[in-house]
Amino acid sequence: MKSGLSFLVAALRSEIDELDQLARTSELVGAIGRLVHGLQRERGISNVVLASGGKRFVGELEAQIAESLQLEERVRECFDRLETDPGRLGNGTRLFSRIAWVIPGLDALPDLRRRIGTLNLTVADATAAFVKLIAGLLAVVFEAADGATDPEISRLLVAMFNFMQGKEFAGQERACGAAAFTSGRNDSARQEQWLHLIESQERCFQVFSEFSGPALEAQWLANLPPAHTAELERMRRIACAAPAGVALDPELSAPWFDCCTRRIDAMQTVETRLAADLRQLCSEKTASVREEMAAHSELLTQIATRSPSPSAAAFFDSAPSASSEAAPAPPASNTALYGRQLERAILELVQDQSRRLQAMSDELDTVRGALNERKLVERAKGLLMAHRKLSEEDAHKMLRQTAMNQNRRLVDVAESVLAMADYLPMHERS
Amino acid sequence: MKSGLSFLVAALRSEIDELDQLARTSELVGAIGRLVHGLQRERGISNVVLASGGKRFVGELEAQIAESLQLEERVRECFDRLETDPGRLGNGTRLFSRIAWVIPGLDALPDLRRRIGTLNLTVADATAAFVKLIAGLLAVVFEAADGATDPEISRLLVAMFNFMQGKEFAGQERACGAAAFTSGRNDSARQEQWLHLIESQERCFQVFSEFSGPALEAQWLANLPPAHTAELERMRRIACAAPAGVALDPELSAPWFDCCTRRIDAMQTVETRLAADLRQLCSEKTASVREEMAAHSELLTQIATRSPSPSAAAFFDSAPSASSEAAPAPPASNTALYGRQLERAILELVQDQSRRLQAMSDELDTVRGALNERKLVERAKGLLMAHRKLSEEDAHKMLRQTAMNQNRRLVDVAESVLAMADYLPMHERS
Repeated sequence: MKSGLSFLVAALRSEIDELDQLARTSELVGAIGRLVHGLQRERGISNVVLASGGKRFVGELEAQIAESLQLEERVRECFDRLETDPGRLGNGTRLFSRIAWVIPGLDALPDLRRRIGTLNLTVADATAAFVKLIAGLLAVVFEAADGATDPEISRLLVAMFNFMQGKEFAGQERACGAAAFTSGRNDSARQEQWLHLIESQERCFQVFSEFSGPALEAQWLANLPPAHTAELERMRRIACAAPAGVALDPELSAPWFDCCTRRIDAMQTVETRLAADLRQLCSEKTASVREEMAAHSELLTQIATRSPSPSAAAFFDSAPSASSEAAPAPPASNTALYGRQLERAILELVQDQSRRLQAMSDELDTVRGALNERKLVERAKGLLMAHRKLSEEDAHKMLRQTAMNQNRRLVDVAESVLAMADYLPMHERS
Repeated sequence: MKSGLSFLVAALRSEIDELDQLARTSELVGAIGRLVHGLQRERGISNVVLASGGKRFVGELEAQIAESLQLEERVRECFDRLETDPGRLGNGTRLFSRIAWVIPGLDALPDLRRRIGTLNLTVADATAAFVKLIAGLLAVVFEAADGATDPEISRLLVAMFNFMQGKEFAGQERACGAAAFTSGRNDSARQEQWLHLIESQERCFQVFSEFSGPALEAQWLANLPPAHTAELERMRRIACAAPAGVALDPELSAPWFDCCTRRIDAMQTVETRLAADLRQLCSEKTASVREEMAAHSELLTQIATRSPSPSAAAFFDSAPSASSEAAPAPPASNTALYGRQLERAILELVQDQSRRLQAMSDELDTVRGALNERKLVERAKGLLMAHRKLSEEDAHKMLRQTAMNQNRRLVDVAESVLAMADYLPMHERS
């Protein structure tokens, strides 16, 4: 028959398990961040190779592939470590399912690279393939953020996911702009897509700023020199504010690419710092819970050796701490506690823990709220896929197109779709 | 290096772990339901013993205590089994913390019983002690419902929690009415409390009906013969609709107690059925996931023996199922699949799983929404405790009093309190 204190210790042990798992997950998130960065570079270089008919950047591509392969290896190691570990995250099932989805994409990379090397693929198809793979990797990060059980760690993971997602939109913007400048003209469809990418990026960085804390936000802002931002905005204006169909100077293609690349590389330094902060936070948290547990274990030993026969007063009095009896000694001290004092000390500990867990759970709800937008979009996409028999990509395109046409945010369109669910026919209308 | 399919299997294994844990939790919830029923009876009988100055029901109390002890033993066994088990619920930490809180209450029962046996306690204090202990047990059930990761099981646990909570309000109403009829008069404070207990009960049974499904709801309604309900409502009216302070017939005390007791016993048969349904659902679900896993393991063996070198087409094509190639054979069949077909089959499996998990997670959010009311009340209570230095009981009383005074629901008052949080002073005002 276990005592209340042994469950208090069990709760702490369970918290430590969760933190250990979070540390492994944070490791994975960092590794994914580095791989995504490598794939983003590989995507950019591959596009130049394909667009130039294999005349430019062939050596660069080879070097980048070698680096991507190493980064992929690290991610796969993290995957394997998660799988063999007996500890489970709250949403282990969904995390594993996301990993199961992305691995075939990694498996298919050699074939994708072979096609790019033999120029057997269009720029658009190569880009789409990398975009899909990176989206799959980001979905793993999303589940990691959604499954975190500690609000402070969850906060950093939400910041991390949004930063990585924003960086990916920036990468897509680089590709979109490069294609426009290289072709020497812009059309309204591309302008719309471009503006959408800018807006999505800004939304992501906004959430990042909200959750990352002042130090990281300052680093992020310091990494964006005003002159650099001004140059980016000038080229954006030239391409997007001009009437559709107007000629663009192909000479701007290289400065555009460099400007975007410097920005994306600056993002990676912030991301690296975020990943380091995450690791440190995990180990600090674990250390603090371990300390608490050691203190309680001492108390547990005291109880085991001289357990008094419990009196009803300690539990059933309505407010032990407000009672006229002497306040219990702090639990971590070596003072021997007897009888009622000992009982009260335990009850206070349990109440403190319960209050702390309650506060954590409340804050966790708030932090997770930031992930709801994406969930709503996913849900609306699922609905469209079922009701209109669309592929995932087409459902996403349809939502995005509606958002652009109506000048509304994607999440608002998703909400409208969900609200109108009952009016959607179960089969394709057209 | 693991394949995508091995993570698909890992996701299923994680689902099975969760279901196993849910089965153990459901066992615990059933055992707590039986113990709460025993403690409710013991509370009622103890009150008669105390009120009669030890003249009545002494033998009944002895028999009931023996039964309660046995039921307590079962609950403690379930607690211990949860603690030693390596598997973890999503909210294991909070569940353990709730258990840590309630065990000192169980430990203090012998002393409480000794005081009742020596008539060394008022009826009000004895009632308050049992109410507190039962509330602690119900909090464990609440966490179990909140931590469930399967929406159908979560649905039944939410129904169960609300039914048990409603039954406890019915038990408190029995005690409240018994005190009023026995004393031969009613006052406005007790009338208010009584009406509040009726309303809270109805709210609980409403949520139960919403989540239990038609079969259980029908059984619940069948267990309430109209004549019986009419008798209950008649006595409620006599006591509550009469002007405050009016004399009540003490002769009604026994029929009131019997009528309430028959109703509460009828509730227990519904509760027993709910617990059995829960057990069955858990084992059905586990069996179905195990079957799916067996089918996938077979496919996994096929891959291990003749893994083709993956082509990019399967993963990077936007809609594999809509492609012009032959649809893959169903995965559970023994048809040997080769090359691209095999890859497509795996991708389809992963997509199916991902869709199923998404749908489950959406439904889970909906079901858990039903638990939000209680969370809001708890949060508002915590706020009042911190800002006005109140005990938990006093904070609850304050909320309930406001609800009664303003004729609003408890949850609405809690929401107002939370919305006004910034305006509350951090220290006691008075």
